[in-house]
Amino acid sequence: MNLPEKVTLIEVGPRDGFQFEKKIIPTELKLRIINGLLEAGIRNIQITSFVNPAVVPQMGDAEELIKLLPENKDTAFSCLLLNERGLHRALKAGINHVEISVSASDTHSRKNTGMPYEAAFKSTQKMIEEAKSHKMQVRAGIQCAFGCSYEGSIPADRVIAIAGKFADSGADMIAVSDTTGMADPLSVRMLIDKLRAIINLPVVLHLHDTRGLGLANVLAGLESGITHFDTALAGMGGCPFVPGAAGNISTEDTAHMMESMHIKTGIDIRKVAACSLELEAFYEKKFPGKIHHLYSCNKEV
Amino acid sequence: MNLPEKVTLIEVGPRDGFQFEKKIIPTELKLRIINGLLEAGIRNIQITSFVNPAVVPQMGDAEELIKLLPENKDTAFSCLLLNERGLHRALKAGINHVEISVSASDTHSRKNTGMPYEAAFKSTQKMIEEAKSHKMQVRAGIQCAFGCSYEGSIPADRVIAIAGKFADSGADMIAVSDTTGMADPLSVRMLIDKLRAIINLPVVLHLHDTRGLGLANVLAGLESGITHFDTALAGMGGCPFVPGAAGNISTEDTAHMMESMHIKTGIDIRKVAACSLELEAFYEKKFPGKIHHLYSCNKEV
Repeated sequence: MNLPEKVTLIEVGPRDGFQFEKKIIPTELKLRIINGLLEAGIRNIQITSFVNPAVVPQMGDAEELIKLLPENKDTAFSCLLLNERGLHRALKAGINHVEISVSASDTHSRKNTGMPYEAAFKSTQKMIEEAKSHKMQVRAGIQCAFGCSYEGSIPADRVIAIAGKFADSGADMIAVSDTTGMADPLSVRMLIDKLRAIINLPVVLHLHDTRGLGLANVLAGLESGITHFDTALAGMGGCPFVPGAAGNISTEDTAHMMESMHIKTGIDIRKVAACSLELEAFYEKKFPGKIHHLYSCNKEV
Repeated sequence: MNLPEKVTLIEVGPRDGFQFEKKIIPTELKLRIINGLLEAGIRNIQITSFVNPAVVPQMGDAEELIKLLPENKDTAFSCLLLNERGLHRALKAGINHVEISVSASDTHSRKNTGMPYEAAFKSTQKMIEEAKSHKMQVRAGIQCAFGCSYEGSIPADRVIAIAGKFADSGADMIAVSDTTGMADPLSVRMLIDKLRAIINLPVVLHLHDTRGLGLANVLAGLESGITHFDTALAGMGGCPFVPGAAGNISTEDTAHMMESMHIKTGIDIRKVAACSLELEAFYEKKFPGKIHHLYSCNKEV
């Protein structure tokens, strides 16, 4: 098996996870969880998104949260930006790592942003160029890269063409997102092998476990040379446009798979699980990840 | 990727799944589910085990269930046997496909059967030989093949030695069980590659999703040439000796993964999911599989 010595897990729970829950999590608890994740050794955390607080009140404290972040020079705290206004807020807040993304599906783009694909792509490209002119680190994302609930399969060539244009616009990294959990190991291998043959930038895989294929797709990604994966503690999150959708792949489950295969993550899984259990207590629900529940039984994992 | 054209899923829900639930399922509902699985195209079903009804009342109707099974010449209905008494009951009931197994872990063997490994192995071997003398089709199983909650990792050489002795005793097929969900894709590849190099019998993988690695391990198994997998509808089942343990890999999720990668299963996933939803209604709980829940949202899967 073609496996790397180490991988980087990028924690997206504080953005993708907290945003998906109706109950609004206080800034203070967000900070406690972020500190817990740092304690657990996580060094890449997507902490919030700059969106309209009237629409997404869970992210309404973006500026305040950034002000209160612990000093940690080794850690990349990043934010998701949806529009120019978000970019200007991020610049003002002094955040340096941003994600800017477009959906490869026209229908999903219209539902998610109100813009057809062409207009959304142009806006995304302009934002990437503006962010780069301010010396931000830009991760350019492609949503629905493996399929769309409305449109079905998405041609790999479309995804590769978008990634190429993002690279030309100066993106530092490409994030390939299986927004609706429609990827399978074969489609991951095919798309990633093609992409890596053409694009000379680091590629992150962002996977959802909607159909139970999350970690099988991680394995396929590893075998295609991917070393960066988005994960969310406890397997929180989901896509509001996919009914019944499960969340992101779980940080603990992914780290456990890696460590089982002797791939280093630098993560203390037990400490992440403690954060997950605190969030389950706050939200009064169980999240879909497996490993943190084993810790809650006081089991050796 | 080294993928087969088709695979066989062996349904173990009516044994492994029904046995794990405290609530006793009536014979009539068992039969309705078995008929539903046949309708869905499943042709290998482990329907019961011959155990002490005072200890496992869920399997107390073994003889009655067998009498009422639909005529289906293409289908292998199989039973699990734990001891000589069970073997004699199976012979009397006229069942022709049996599974006889031993745990590769001494501690697990003592907890599960009351016998240390050596005595349990001898008893198993004797049962295999007796079953073969009656021309039964015998699947010889090795539990805890990838690790044991009590003993930790299990040496691959021990598993291979057991398989070799089972082959010598006349077993028709070897079942390698990850009873406690401790396998990972690397350990699956390593064990199965070694096993298939030495044993010239079909090998079945029996996987549990305790740590979320079920389908990643299926993928590793496929790449090692495995084409037979045990699955349980809805992801029912579990190991009573592993607290917090999740069930078997889900029939629907596994079939969905296969079909996504253009590997034929012969299974109508929607029809299996209908059985799963009926069982969730009966047991008044959600089982851990993903795909059948998507069908319950009336989603296109």
